[in-house]
Amino acid sequence: MRRLFLLCSLTIPFFCHAQSTAPENILPYVHPIVGTQRMGHTYPGASAPFGMVQLSPDTDTIPYEQNGRYNPDVYKYCAGYQYDDKTIVGFSHTHFSGTGHSDLGDFLLMPTTGELKLNPGVSSQARSGFRSAFSHATEVAEADYYKVRLEDYDILAELTATTRVGFHQYTFPASEQAHIILDLMHGIYNYEDKNVWSFVRVENDTLITGYRQTNGWGRTRTVYFAMTFSKPFYQYGSHSYSRRQVYRGFWGKFDQDHNFPDLAGRQLRMHFDFRTRQGEKIKCKFALSSVSTEGALLNLRMELPGWDFEEARRQGQEAWNAELGKVRIEAGPAEKVNFYTSLYHAFINPTVYMDVDGSYRGLDQLNHKADGFVNYTTFSLWDTHRALHPLFNIVQPRRNMDMIRSMLVHYQQSAEHMLPIWSHYANENWCMSGYHAVSVIADAIVKSDNFSDGNRALDACIATSDHRSFEGLGAYIDKGYIPAGSSGTSVSTTLEYAYDDWCIAQAAKKLGRMDVYATYMKRSENYKNVFDPSIGYMRPRLADGSFRTEFDVLSTNGQGFIEGNAWNYSLYVPHDPTSLITMLGGKKRFVAHLDSLFTMELPDKFFAETEDITRDGIIGNYVHGNEPSHHVAYLYNWTDQPWKTQERVRMILEKQYHPTPDGLGGNDDCGQMSAWYVFTALGFYPVAPGSADYSLGSPAVDKAVIQLDNGKTFTVVAKDQGVKNVYVKKVTLNGQPLNRRVITHSEIMGGGELVFYMSAKH
Amino acid sequence: MRRLFLLCSLTIPFFCHAQSTAPENILPYVHPIVGTQRMGHTYPGASAPFGMVQLSPDTDTIPYEQNGRYNPDVYKYCAGYQYDDKTIVGFSHTHFSGTGHSDLGDFLLMPTTGELKLNPGVSSQARSGFRSAFSHATEVAEADYYKVRLEDYDILAELTATTRVGFHQYTFPASEQAHIILDLMHGIYNYEDKNVWSFVRVENDTLITGYRQTNGWGRTRTVYFAMTFSKPFYQYGSHSYSRRQVYRGFWGKFDQDHNFPDLAGRQLRMHFDFRTRQGEKIKCKFALSSVSTEGALLNLRMELPGWDFEEARRQGQEAWNAELGKVRIEAGPAEKVNFYTSLYHAFINPTVYMDVDGSYRGLDQLNHKADGFVNYTTFSLWDTHRALHPLFNIVQPRRNMDMIRSMLVHYQQSAEHMLPIWSHYANENWCMSGYHAVSVIADAIVKSDNFSDGNRALDACIATSDHRSFEGLGAYIDKGYIPAGSSGTSVSTTLEYAYDDWCIAQAAKKLGRMDVYATYMKRSENYKNVFDPSIGYMRPRLADGSFRTEFDVLSTNGQGFIEGNAWNYSLYVPHDPTSLITMLGGKKRFVAHLDSLFTMELPDKFFAETEDITRDGIIGNYVHGNEPSHHVAYLYNWTDQPWKTQERVRMILEKQYHPTPDGLGGNDDCGQMSAWYVFTALGFYPVAPGSADYSLGSPAVDKAVIQLDNGKTFTVVAKDQGVKNVYVKKVTLNGQPLNRRVITHSEIMGGGELVFYMSAKH
Repeated sequence: MRRLFLLCSLTIPFFCHAQSTAPENILPYVHPIVGTQRMGHTYPGASAPFGMVQLSPDTDTIPYEQNGRYNPDVYKYCAGYQYDDKTIVGFSHTHFSGTGHSDLGDFLLMPTTGELKLNPGVSSQARSGFRSAFSHATEVAEADYYKVRLEDYDILAELTATTRVGFHQYTFPASEQAHIILDLMHGIYNYEDKNVWSFVRVENDTLITGYRQTNGWGRTRTVYFAMTFSKPFYQYGSHSYSRRQVYRGFWGKFDQDHNFPDLAGRQLRMHFDFRTRQGEKIKCKFALSSVSTEGALLNLRMELPGWDFEEARRQGQEAWNAELGKVRIEAGPAEKVNFYTSLYHAFINPTVYMDVDGSYRGLDQLNHKADGFVNYTTFSLWDTHRALHPLFNIVQPRRNMDMIRSMLVHYQQSAEHMLPIWSHYANENWCMSGYHAVSVIADAIVKSDNFSDGNRALDACIATSDHRSFEGLGAYIDKGYIPAGSSGTSVSTTLEYAYDDWCIAQAAKKLGRMDVYATYMKRSENYKNVFDPSIGYMRPRLADGSFRTEFDVLSTNGQGFIEGNAWNYSLYVPHDPTSLITMLGGKKRFVAHLDSLFTMELPDKFFAETEDITRDGIIGNYVHGNEPSHHVAYLYNWTDQPWKTQERVRMILEKQYHPTPDGLGGNDDCGQMSAWYVFTALGFYPVAPGSADYSLGSPAVDKAVIQLDNGKTFTVVAKDQGVKNVYVKKVTLNGQPLNRRVITHSEIMGGGELVFYMSAKH
Repeated sequence: MRRLFLLCSLTIPFFCHAQSTAPENILPYVHPIVGTQRMGHTYPGASAPFGMVQLSPDTDTIPYEQNGRYNPDVYKYCAGYQYDDKTIVGFSHTHFSGTGHSDLGDFLLMPTTGELKLNPGVSSQARSGFRSAFSHATEVAEADYYKVRLEDYDILAELTATTRVGFHQYTFPASEQAHIILDLMHGIYNYEDKNVWSFVRVENDTLITGYRQTNGWGRTRTVYFAMTFSKPFYQYGSHSYSRRQVYRGFWGKFDQDHNFPDLAGRQLRMHFDFRTRQGEKIKCKFALSSVSTEGALLNLRMELPGWDFEEARRQGQEAWNAELGKVRIEAGPAEKVNFYTSLYHAFINPTVYMDVDGSYRGLDQLNHKADGFVNYTTFSLWDTHRALHPLFNIVQPRRNMDMIRSMLVHYQQSAEHMLPIWSHYANENWCMSGYHAVSVIADAIVKSDNFSDGNRALDACIATSDHRSFEGLGAYIDKGYIPAGSSGTSVSTTLEYAYDDWCIAQAAKKLGRMDVYATYMKRSENYKNVFDPSIGYMRPRLADGSFRTEFDVLSTNGQGFIEGNAWNYSLYVPHDPTSLITMLGGKKRFVAHLDSLFTMELPDKFFAETEDITRDGIIGNYVHGNEPSHHVAYLYNWTDQPWKTQERVRMILEKQYHPTPDGLGGNDDCGQMSAWYVFTALGFYPVAPGSADYSLGSPAVDKAVIQLDNGKTFTVVAKDQGVKNVYVKKVTLNGQPLNRRVITHSEIMGGGELVFYMSAKH
């Protein structure tokens, strides 16, 4: 490319000349706004691929509690933004994408003019605080770029980000009273005591450093920052909103609220004051670090030394084009938006968690240096082991390997000596069931020819799966199941352990450790121990071996399951569908069970207890917004009616994904929902990560070219596919008929062409 | 010594043979218990010289507040221990010595037997918690050794410490239920929200690491620890007493209260359980760090690798003998106890504040490495600039220089770009008036021939004294005084600034910066601006130049003074007594003023507002327990009645210092009261640090030999001194009559002999 530029640059613009060979700009198909309405829990702001900074508008600061009780409305704000809101509180620097519990929202900046307001105010009352009205008409949300007009102040706010630095550009009106507010109290899932401590130093008239420490989902979480303005403020101030702070050490020595450079406390807000000309841009670069203010400064200086906002945006968007361009598809415009927005949502987490020099804060609260890898955090593994990490295994193998190394250092630093369950920012929050890091590790070991230090990784898997005091594991090891009563999720957790154990066995087999293989293959059959053949469902079982009598196959709550009832979880043996089908009464009965799942009418009372999803997220009793059934539509492939897989997956694609703000029927769950879309649209899906097989479905793109890291390309062609043409007549791989319902990982990585011949009839 | 040992060890015990040449063991004269009753605020526990660990029993946990209001009883517990108490709560690792406000008390350990109690209980109710009754009969308090029997449990507790590691030895009875409690909630000046965060990892069955972060007098203070037991516990547990902690991330994954290795929260207590044989010793080494748990582990391994308690105690006490042996005196037994206990109290602070590798947490909350010096903290400079640092300048010059380097790095790290005022643990608490670090620096510059980088130090002094937004400094610079109304201590602070400015001038003169000298000499005369010649007293002055009418020369509160009334503060021009005397009406009137100070009867209402001292700490209107008058008794030397200095200082020595628990009439103030004793007992005193002169008094020892760092010795002989023989007839220096009332620093450092000829008559 550089050579080409040299040849043509003397005469005509590069892009003009190179247009025919330049890859298509993918960014128009990326709509970060998708999923911001209702249950998607995505955020519309700016982020570099897998970036440490997620700089995004927050539309409300709903408290976690009201009148001392959990406030269910807080759930809407897992990502800080709800599309239906009319005001923006400000722009904060960290956000989860698609989670069903939350945290973060660190360091909210808000530009204002006029009378200084240090309280955010309430959305129901105009101008009651520093928040501003806004309209979607002035809002632009692209990959790594966000723009909105703050109507109360006539300020145009623009955001972009490098991996570790948020870049704000605020275009002010003429004002003698222009302010930029730094709110250190603001946070997502913010309850009274969440802020543990904050500390700020005003180093000079353009540079501020500090940190905030919180006790939230991340139990002991500290984020350091360094922020710098393009223009010196002429004065600044702060206010402490702490309930109390006995000794701040002033005794009249200083006026702490004005121009005092040395602040600390639990609840602080600051303001920096400017005078602006009409149309004057004040820019702010805001760098993060998990290690120190020094680390944040280093990130700032190394990643974003200049002040050219447009250039930073251009580079950020170029990086996105490069990442998303790893899969180039031909499809209808709506499908392209769905596809690339999904790929975008898949590529913003896990997030980089180290400074430019490799330093990061570990689980042991010590500072470490990532030695030869990029350290990542935010592992929502109960969700993402299913499709997101397998997707990475194909299109982001290096990052996936680094994520595994990140999990292994987590293991080394963990006081419990366990791999991550659900971890973020050097904390383990233990959310959800199983120990699915072993699935990610096994999937990589099984699919890789050069997984380094596999035995060490396997040892970490074994240690994790042998931690007897972890949720029911002791009993599971002894009895083969978790007794009902000792856990509210005894059945689903037993099933997930069994799948995880099969993963460990697969990795052990690949590594030639056949004793481990034998042990864990045996454990992988434990799913049988919670199956009640008398009713044909998985069912809670008591310590004495009897099944619990009080039991409803449609109920989730307290019935031994989580995010899925017995009807769904009875299908959760991803590692051995054949045996499952036999256990459930053979293929015919199995198909009937599957069919009923998609077609039954779920009584209202069970809908009420279904978590994390809108009514649209439910198809019959199939809940796509929750993950335990993500493999289910592919199970028809093990029956005599594989065409039903093709039909169902297309139906799910169509019903559950839309290129609109409300386009996601349930939480995106750190990209798992999106990764399901990407795989399914490409025509294959990893039913059991840890296996090198992908189950074939029904591609929803005309063509896809996957650029592999090994230099090869793997192309999927779906001849004649369309809304009606969802059935697969024939499949060829590299021109040869593929007479099976799977392709293997090595077939993909070997490059070549997979052609589906589609039809309106099965 | 080693050689001598080899020569004699074959036949007879070393001490027997070497007795005649071995230096006297000073430790019997050190009574750490002195000052632990009432107002001394000293602690009786174990500390190495200037040690980072001060391991001492705490006898109560008085809350800072009762019913939402300040609880005056908390003041008794500034050092955690009150002699009159009947119970010990446990042994914590950090204590101030002699302060009048407080903090610290980190990491309380308490061994118990029987039923587990995790609450400390109350002293008024026997066995209401884990605290234990004790008796002074079983208590031994020596330099770096403390022993007591915990009567409720029949446990003998012994303590010693290296610089950074506390060493506990608990001798248990036979018990199936022996516990060691680690209380992470305990603290001194403990109010509800003081504990910001704590974090603990049980690394294995003998090693625990963690930290605690507090918001107290030290606003943002974190202390890391690593503790190890000599015997594995067989189980452990914890309890969180936090008012709330929304997300601890367990959801039934673990039983957090039992054998769970990964704790965090605001209010935690832990217990480690053992089974013991009769007389079994369980030892615990407890290392601190300001940087990290890794740093604490490094300190533990480098300073105290073994488990020999007796050897650790021996080495610690040998270190004390070496430090205290720098001044060897001949005196009566009580005087020796007073003297060496004072020297001991002078040598336990400031405290080392860095790990063995030089790492320490700075004011900027970043980790730094002390480059070529030992970093110290706990600078109670309003107190200690008067006599403690001048004493160090003679007997601890290297440490004093390192303390100054510590102040200079404080300056570099300070967001306000100021030298320390009252700082501890990487925090500035701004307590008391003035910027007396400049006194310590000037004193060292003036008295040293090789002060390195003096100009940099002087620049720090100038910057500090020019910080216009610091307490009244802007007005002081503009008007020459702080207007009453802008500060409650306008007069005393003006006076202290004037003295400090004189110090800066002295340093500038030594460094040849005569422009600075001239500027600051002029500023040093600002004391004249708050003197009201119409009444002959220093007096609050309003912004318009008039003196405040509402004024009582005996009152302190809100009258423009702190820890001293106008009567006392009118004598506070230490840098120019001659001018002061002229201003106050000449020598005769001045002597009358001085006499009245010592002889008047202070009305009760003024006693009530005199801070920090017992009634015994007041002699007339002279308040020895507060520092502003520490130079006053020496001012007779500038009159025609120097014998009154001799008489008064002996009276003060006799009335204010006793070798008993109640032996200190006021707060020892980090060694300032003790340093006053040492100087005065030696017969000379630094009336104005920053001057190389010492004013002569009346030595209270028969002989003193000061071992100087330069290899020379300076000897003081007081011929015929005694309780009645307090007057100085004649003084010779190196055999020559000394016909002046001062000796100079260079005369001392040159070595030689100063002989006082004492008499019962003046």
